[in-house]
Amino acid sequence: MADHHINSEAIENYILSNPFKGKPENLYNAMNYIMQLGGKRMRPQLMLLSYLAVKNEVNNSAFNIALALETFHNFSLVHDDIMDNAPIRRGKKTVHEEWDIPTAILVGDNLLIKCYDLIMETDFENKIPLMKEFTKMASLVCDGQQLDMNMPFKEFVTEDEYLKMIELKTAILPACALKMGAMAAGANEVECQLFYDFGLNLGMAFQLQDDYLDAFGLESQIGKQVGGDILENKKTVLFIHALNHLSDSLKEELLNWYDNKSNSEEKIQKVKELFEQADSRNYLLNLKASYEAKALKYLRSITMNQTVKTEFDNLFGFLKSRAN
Amino acid sequence: MADHHINSEAIENYILSNPFKGKPENLYNAMNYIMQLGGKRMRPQLMLLSYLAVKNEVNNSAFNIALALETFHNFSLVHDDIMDNAPIRRGKKTVHEEWDIPTAILVGDNLLIKCYDLIMETDFENKIPLMKEFTKMASLVCDGQQLDMNMPFKEFVTEDEYLKMIELKTAILPACALKMGAMAAGANEVECQLFYDFGLNLGMAFQLQDDYLDAFGLESQIGKQVGGDILENKKTVLFIHALNHLSDSLKEELLNWYDNKSNSEEKIQKVKELFEQADSRNYLLNLKASYEAKALKYLRSITMNQTVKTEFDNLFGFLKSRAN
Repeated sequence: MADHHINSEAIENYILSNPFKGKPENLYNAMNYIMQLGGKRMRPQLMLLSYLAVKNEVNNSAFNIALALETFHNFSLVHDDIMDNAPIRRGKKTVHEEWDIPTAILVGDNLLIKCYDLIMETDFENKIPLMKEFTKMASLVCDGQQLDMNMPFKEFVTEDEYLKMIELKTAILPACALKMGAMAAGANEVECQLFYDFGLNLGMAFQLQDDYLDAFGLESQIGKQVGGDILENKKTVLFIHALNHLSDSLKEELLNWYDNKSNSEEKIQKVKELFEQADSRNYLLNLKASYEAKALKYLRSITMNQTVKTEFDNLFGFLKSRAN
Repeated sequence: MADHHINSEAIENYILSNPFKGKPENLYNAMNYIMQLGGKRMRPQLMLLSYLAVKNEVNNSAFNIALALETFHNFSLVHDDIMDNAPIRRGKKTVHEEWDIPTAILVGDNLLIKCYDLIMETDFENKIPLMKEFTKMASLVCDGQQLDMNMPFKEFVTEDEYLKMIELKTAILPACALKMGAMAAGANEVECQLFYDFGLNLGMAFQLQDDYLDAFGLESQIGKQVGGDILENKKTVLFIHALNHLSDSLKEELLNWYDNKSNSEEKIQKVKELFEQADSRNYLLNLKASYEAKALKYLRSITMNQTVKTEFDNLFGFLKSRAN
């Protein structure tokens, strides 16, 4: 594929034309079900763009690395959905709902294993460094998910602890995707690190935007109930900031809402009002903007041709202003 | 470590002195808990012995491959125990019982990832072929576990289907361990394949011995309730053979017992009587012996020094006659 243009359609086609093959059928059907459920395909896009920023055309090996990253992302979605008891993913039943928990565990395990198959199949000379980078990221994502699972059992969560958790759980995957693209294309270490730092800050901004939309987005746009994090008493930046900036009596009120397991619209409304009163909404938007600014600074420090630069700018603009 | 003698103590020490390190603590404690729960350490022993059969001393890189194989085995135990709702493993609480299901899922995921870390850390020149061999095995073990999970939903299971399932789920791991040891030591392809075939037949015999002990072992020796497979209506070789060799009325009786979910001693006794009446006990012992004979034939076809040969013979004798 000698094409500068990395659109999500090309990635979608590559995923559809390279399903995982094997037996038993139910296992492989379930693996391909989650892979083909759509999504933004952000991680493969980032990887292919950083590859193109260094080398001026992509080949099947590059697409295989992109597919490995998307496969890893889907592995983590399938296992996280079991842990979160989530019934719906991208408007469809989650794997453990459509099949069962044992199948979903095995789907995740096998997707994780297939990532290594995909990387090893490539013709890059630096396969071992690529696999080391991937493996370091993969283990840290598990650590991040465990940190997230531990949060409900912690009485106090600091903003730093929350940011560390989302860094590991969410931000290092796009960072790794961008770095692996540059590595595969033969960039030097300094350049690879710039891509990593760009991705890390982009990933942080991405997750903070997710947190923002979860509280202040529109149900029609985000495709799920607004206020999910609030109902689950998640200790997000909004909650942590509000707790530290409300008067004692309003702080008490917030803690009371978070103590109760009610599923009411009233809880969502009241907690959002408290977030506004503490100015936590603006605080979150500013924090997100500061990560975006850092991401942009790193992106601008990397030399690349105008075509790829424009594609990065488009993707960056889309991720920055997305409403879903 | 310039020592011919690969005993399980040396392996145990290597495992204890190389715990997995990272945060959060509960995740890494749980990973090291299962790793340090003991067991026969059969897979690392097999790997190190085949390595020594080719090269006359082992080094840390060889031990890292051995540790990777034991780590993979533990990954599969942790996830299988979740799927089987198993409360006890090696006389202690399973990971999902001692911690919880999300932690146990992440323990398995992270152990699987750490296998690749261990293989990549070695100084073998053929790391990529070693990882390919490992990855092929790992994916097939997942396929085998899915086949096992599918069995209760199948009305008829043939002996071939059962044997294929245990081959994938159990036998290819020792086969791969022996092959990877030989590969790491630089053996040629023919020799590597002989080790693989030795391990595959050994693994089949091992699992059939497990099935035998589950029905006809002593509770005091196997460390768990005798008849577990019968209570779970598992379609083992004993059941499949009996079904094909009993008179119609006794076949009906067996199917009736397997239709009911009772946990009674009576069920175990009656089903075992039916197995005896169909001569299924002897059939299983003969089938097991035929795999042992094949394993021994492959073992004898490999040239090695007397010390390693004796160690293989000891291990082989132990596995053949074990009562637990």
